[in-house]
Amino acid sequence: MAPSAVPQDDSTLTANGIASSIAKTAPSVLDSSSGQSNGTSALLTDKITNGPSNGLKSTPSASSPLPELDASKLTITLTQNPRSVPAAGSPEQASQKVCTDHMITAQWTSSSGWAVPELKPYGPLTLMPTASCLHYATECFEGMKLYRGFDGKLRLFRPNLNCARMLMSANRIALPSFPPTELLKLIAKLCETDGGKWLPKDQPGSFLYIRPTMIASDPALGVQRPKEATLFIILTCFPPMDSDPKGLKLLASKNDMVRAWPGGFGYAKVGANYGPSLVAQGEARALGFDQILWLFGKNGEVTEAGASNFFVIWRTKDEGKLQLVTAPLGEKIILDGVTRRSVLELAREKLGGELEVVERKYTMAEVAEAQQEGRLVEAFAAGTAFFIAPVGLIHYHGNDLGVPLEEGKGGKYTYQLKTWLKDIMWGNQQHEWGYVIEEK
Amino acid sequence: MAPSAVPQDDSTLTANGIASSIAKTAPSVLDSSSGQSNGTSALLTDKITNGPSNGLKSTPSASSPLPELDASKLTITLTQNPRSVPAAGSPEQASQKVCTDHMITAQWTSSSGWAVPELKPYGPLTLMPTASCLHYATECFEGMKLYRGFDGKLRLFRPNLNCARMLMSANRIALPSFPPTELLKLIAKLCETDGGKWLPKDQPGSFLYIRPTMIASDPALGVQRPKEATLFIILTCFPPMDSDPKGLKLLASKNDMVRAWPGGFGYAKVGANYGPSLVAQGEARALGFDQILWLFGKNGEVTEAGASNFFVIWRTKDEGKLQLVTAPLGEKIILDGVTRRSVLELAREKLGGELEVVERKYTMAEVAEAQQEGRLVEAFAAGTAFFIAPVGLIHYHGNDLGVPLEEGKGGKYTYQLKTWLKDIMWGNQQHEWGYVIEEK
Repeated sequence: MAPSAVPQDDSTLTANGIASSIAKTAPSVLDSSSGQSNGTSALLTDKITNGPSNGLKSTPSASSPLPELDASKLTITLTQNPRSVPAAGSPEQASQKVCTDHMITAQWTSSSGWAVPELKPYGPLTLMPTASCLHYATECFEGMKLYRGFDGKLRLFRPNLNCARMLMSANRIALPSFPPTELLKLIAKLCETDGGKWLPKDQPGSFLYIRPTMIASDPALGVQRPKEATLFIILTCFPPMDSDPKGLKLLASKNDMVRAWPGGFGYAKVGANYGPSLVAQGEARALGFDQILWLFGKNGEVTEAGASNFFVIWRTKDEGKLQLVTAPLGEKIILDGVTRRSVLELAREKLGGELEVVERKYTMAEVAEAQQEGRLVEAFAAGTAFFIAPVGLIHYHGNDLGVPLEEGKGGKYTYQLKTWLKDIMWGNQQHEWGYVIEEK
Repeated sequence: MAPSAVPQDDSTLTANGIASSIAKTAPSVLDSSSGQSNGTSALLTDKITNGPSNGLKSTPSASSPLPELDASKLTITLTQNPRSVPAAGSPEQASQKVCTDHMITAQWTSSSGWAVPELKPYGPLTLMPTASCLHYATECFEGMKLYRGFDGKLRLFRPNLNCARMLMSANRIALPSFPPTELLKLIAKLCETDGGKWLPKDQPGSFLYIRPTMIASDPALGVQRPKEATLFIILTCFPPMDSDPKGLKLLASKNDMVRAWPGGFGYAKVGANYGPSLVAQGEARALGFDQILWLFGKNGEVTEAGASNFFVIWRTKDEGKLQLVTAPLGEKIILDGVTRRSVLELAREKLGGELEVVERKYTMAEVAEAQQEGRLVEAFAAGTAFFIAPVGLIHYHGNDLGVPLEEGKGGKYTYQLKTWLKDIMWGNQQHEWGYVIEEK
């Protein structure tokens, strides 16, 4: 096509173009008109959460005759060398190195589409030194958990949201599309296979961390759209998610380190958001803090805490109105977190009479002013890995700003939200967000 | 350390802090007071280019008693299964998939420092599925070339600059430090080993692409500073670097796709700059363009073309003065390219009487205005992989802006600069920038 024939509207290059491309692949998952109440970018929904067989429709893209990712074709090779399960509370469990007995992998090429996925013994990957993902960060992932409930059942939490987001992330870095429901079926199958042994029924309240990952595995150094990719899913032991009883200590970022920017990829769960944050994170830890509180722009807008979303509860300056505030999704610089979304939805549903739920840009100066005037009520980080973590202190412009909390519990609302979520995750409350894994 | 003991000046968190940390490791390489004439961030110098044994001093950091990367300890295992060299001009040569017979690897751990580097047969890497680099883009690289000169010699081009930049890139994503001169010695050794066979003396004017890479190989999912890393160096066949005789066709980026941001990492050669650019690049190619011309900010400042630096030559509006213009390094959103630097230095030295060399912010609107008023003289992209590539067209705001060039040669100055550089690279001119690899 001659450049002069380029249409005036280069809309395929836009973020909307990507969303449109996702919608073509998975129209049933990504429904921007679904009336989700939490913001301008509510692309992800989890209307159907009853189980794998009732999951989202697998809709192969009409434009592609190549095989789609198809969980029904999964081949299964069980391990002959079962691994031992680390004791609860052991350093081994906390190392984030110990994976379960099995993993799932699936290969994709641009010429042949998705190959048959395989469930097989956990083990190393073999990549050529020229593999795209080792040079160009052509990689994305999800973070989820498998919960052993107090009712004895294994559950995922709103997994459709993760699977849809994984597709969005993959597309942001030119990795292949797939039907999110097929990814969900594969995740469920791995959980069903290893969950019984690794999360025994006599240890309710335990969990495993689930890491679906996609990498470009082309053995070619050209900087170009990947022609080969590998999807893999692993289950990892994880330290208990109880945070410091005194709350997280955050260090507000300075202007010379920015996590994400408009037109970038801060909203996608791509590797490129993480590696570049580690220097600042490492320095913060060396200074005695837990995480960076990432600010953006010359006004110091509050965005994320470490790799989690961030919330404050304050009273407004003018009217003293109680508000739960978090940054909006509109500029696409923060992650549309599943925990973030759940907090907003629960707060709107159950706390609406007590506090106002607000998604808006807000600055660190506003938070500092509220703290100094005694209007800062609570603050917490929210994400899958470390769940709801109360914040006890923010270091900003040379000052330690204390945030009120009850030691070991966090603030009243933080604790309430955390409890509601835990009850759903571990089956104390039957809820459509809990996705039960059937065990044999 | 208690958070309240945090110093008022958190300077270790700043970009300057990183530069300072680099300077401690490699003071002889990174000399910001060296009087380099090209800009505010002239961290890299190549004063000493006579050969590995006269190279930069290896200065182990005083704070670390752990073993440094040490090329003198290299172990050598030659291949028993030599690979065949693709014919010049073959699709195999152009695939960027064919590597030479050998590679060099070196392992690092935070507890043991650098292990003995190994030269060994080229082959796959084995990584656990939990490896940091597969999830968090903890990876950086360099791009260099090995030239077979018309005088029969093998040469690198200003390799000290690449080795120093690799250290800077590694530090930007929390990968370990190393003495750049040791990296250079390892590169030279691999080139010496494979250069004779893969760049025969009867094929002057040929080259191989050199890819030093460092990845975090920790098998642990924690988002944290890497505790294990792997350095590897490979040599790859590459397509001839003659570009389209009609020049590159560039598509100016729109606001919703931004390559880099102040406080980010656009100046470092880290994977995170590449994967997220592939969607825009793929769409540009589908529309018939070669690359994206990345603009930044609401004023549309011109930054890079694809993964190359970008230059225009124009006459000024007021005085009609001839200028060679490129974006400055100050905001750290563009790469301090070795070709960019060399172009600036040669132009200042040899073309100073004819044109003014200017590093300043300039906008796409200025370029378009110059084009419309007949003041745009030439434009080219400059980088190692595709060298000096004349630009023939820029698509911006719905218009195709033609750039003058002589078919097959580019503009007069572009061609002149390219010729001078080629003469140094392939030994038609003996120059301190040419780094000769001694062959046995």
